[in-house]
Amino acid sequence: MSIVIIAPSRDSTNWIKQLKKLDSELVIEVYPDVADPATVDCAVVWLYPHGILKSYPNLKLICSMGAGVDHILRDPDLPEVPVTRVVSERLAFSMNTYVAMAVLNLHRNYDKYQEDQIGKVWDQETFPETEVSVGVFGFGYLGQQIGLTLKAIGLEVHGYSQTRKKVEGIKTYGTGELDKFLSEINVLVGVLPMTENTRGIFSMPLFEKLKKPTYFINVGRGNQQKESDILLALEKGILSGAMLDVFEKEPLPKDSPLWTHPKVKLTPHIAGITNPDAAVPQIFENYKLMKRGKSLINKVDKNKGY
Amino acid sequence: MSIVIIAPSRDSTNWIKQLKKLDSELVIEVYPDVADPATVDCAVVWLYPHGILKSYPNLKLICSMGAGVDHILRDPDLPEVPVTRVVSERLAFSMNTYVAMAVLNLHRNYDKYQEDQIGKVWDQETFPETEVSVGVFGFGYLGQQIGLTLKAIGLEVHGYSQTRKKVEGIKTYGTGELDKFLSEINVLVGVLPMTENTRGIFSMPLFEKLKKPTYFINVGRGNQQKESDILLALEKGILSGAMLDVFEKEPLPKDSPLWTHPKVKLTPHIAGITNPDAAVPQIFENYKLMKRGKSLINKVDKNKGY
Repeated sequence: MSIVIIAPSRDSTNWIKQLKKLDSELVIEVYPDVADPATVDCAVVWLYPHGILKSYPNLKLICSMGAGVDHILRDPDLPEVPVTRVVSERLAFSMNTYVAMAVLNLHRNYDKYQEDQIGKVWDQETFPETEVSVGVFGFGYLGQQIGLTLKAIGLEVHGYSQTRKKVEGIKTYGTGELDKFLSEINVLVGVLPMTENTRGIFSMPLFEKLKKPTYFINVGRGNQQKESDILLALEKGILSGAMLDVFEKEPLPKDSPLWTHPKVKLTPHIAGITNPDAAVPQIFENYKLMKRGKSLINKVDKNKGY
Repeated sequence: MSIVIIAPSRDSTNWIKQLKKLDSELVIEVYPDVADPATVDCAVVWLYPHGILKSYPNLKLICSMGAGVDHILRDPDLPEVPVTRVVSERLAFSMNTYVAMAVLNLHRNYDKYQEDQIGKVWDQETFPETEVSVGVFGFGYLGQQIGLTLKAIGLEVHGYSQTRKKVEGIKTYGTGELDKFLSEINVLVGVLPMTENTRGIFSMPLFEKLKKPTYFINVGRGNQQKESDILLALEKGILSGAMLDVFEKEPLPKDSPLWTHPKVKLTPHIAGITNPDAAVPQIFENYKLMKRGKSLINKVDKNKGY
């Protein structure tokens, strides 16, 4: 039997090397060079062409190469086999540093001082901090890690998830408490999984419930935001600014006004790093578990969408 | 008896208000409006005119309004009375957030992505992190807080102080181990007290012992750095960049090449905030202790210089 890697946008070399290190006997093929589709029992995928998985009649496991699985669950021809995702400390670490950077740049008025430097302005009069009360929207594993990091820095943190979580030192909220959550923060961090419930959630109806003004950081998925509404909320002073790592369309089209908006910082979907070092052992573990008919780790609930 | 505040560069209003809150009977005067110098038994000072303290014949205590006391110990006419400084969580918090911001902007290549945004470049190929191994030079209370914060974020931290400290999860160094410390880091954070030993320490002889290239952050005192050597080290590729909050001369002169150097970020000595809320209770406590002839808190060792 064999594993097929289907990730046209990625270089698979290192993934193969890492998998072979764990078991040199593994047969690994890279789509579209598959000798016999009938031998494939596991597909390791990232942004693969939908429909392709049904060409592997003996497929028993689909492994996402990252934390997100929306690209898999959207496949109308998704085979009825288990899907797993990567739950990675490495991913959490990079998400943490990215969000902490964005929050601290806001808190310590980094942009103001950089502008002052350009103008050779020595301003000790302006108070050098902006008070922040950070709300982490999506309080699963990644969201909690982000919350704990911000708390360790000494910042005020709130966390919202459908099922309220208990985390010491962090005020948490669950279903029915979204309005309260949104009214008590002035930095909104989106770290939501992509599901039908979260599509387009960052739009005017939600923005209008925020304290005015709130800073918006999104490291979840681009489909969760309405970019026209972000621009409108900035214009109305509902949002004080935004740092976005994800976009409705990626790469972000050159004609998007986000590129040049003075209150928008953007990065090309690089906040969270899933490197093969972290992901491969989990994928390999699941491959072995599947072979033995045992319960998988980090298995996706297809109804919940994560 | 009375307290005199001598801080020509500062607005004393809030300090007086906070002190009066703790004891409404206190007599507080603001230099130069002192009715009878003989009644003054405590001077609360910041960057005061040297020599002035000897005009208070019954002075028994000198309290710095901040963490630094070099401005006091440099006074050739310093009376032979105890000097105290402020050891403040509030100061540590602001130092922490500033240094964490500087380190994270480096680690997550913030400047590169901001440049890319200006050029509308969507670059997912460059690895989005720069590995950092942070060395905190000066590992007293403030240095340790900075180290613990960076460690909590998940970064590698080393700490150097004359007397080696023990802090869990942080590799520490003491006298005789400076070269080793400098060779194991690639981010150097200066958080040293100003003493005769630290004057001009950030200059070529030290820079030459660094791993090439190292990023330099200084939140200590400007007199500790030789700015011409920082520029030279940048030119030689010894330093990859610098973020400076302190300068040999403050305000930084308009003709300093630091203002426009592409690898230098600067801020106007705003990293550490000592607000009256944090400092006043310590000053008041010491005032009471002095009255009762008891041991003071945060008393300065005039030989060590901090």
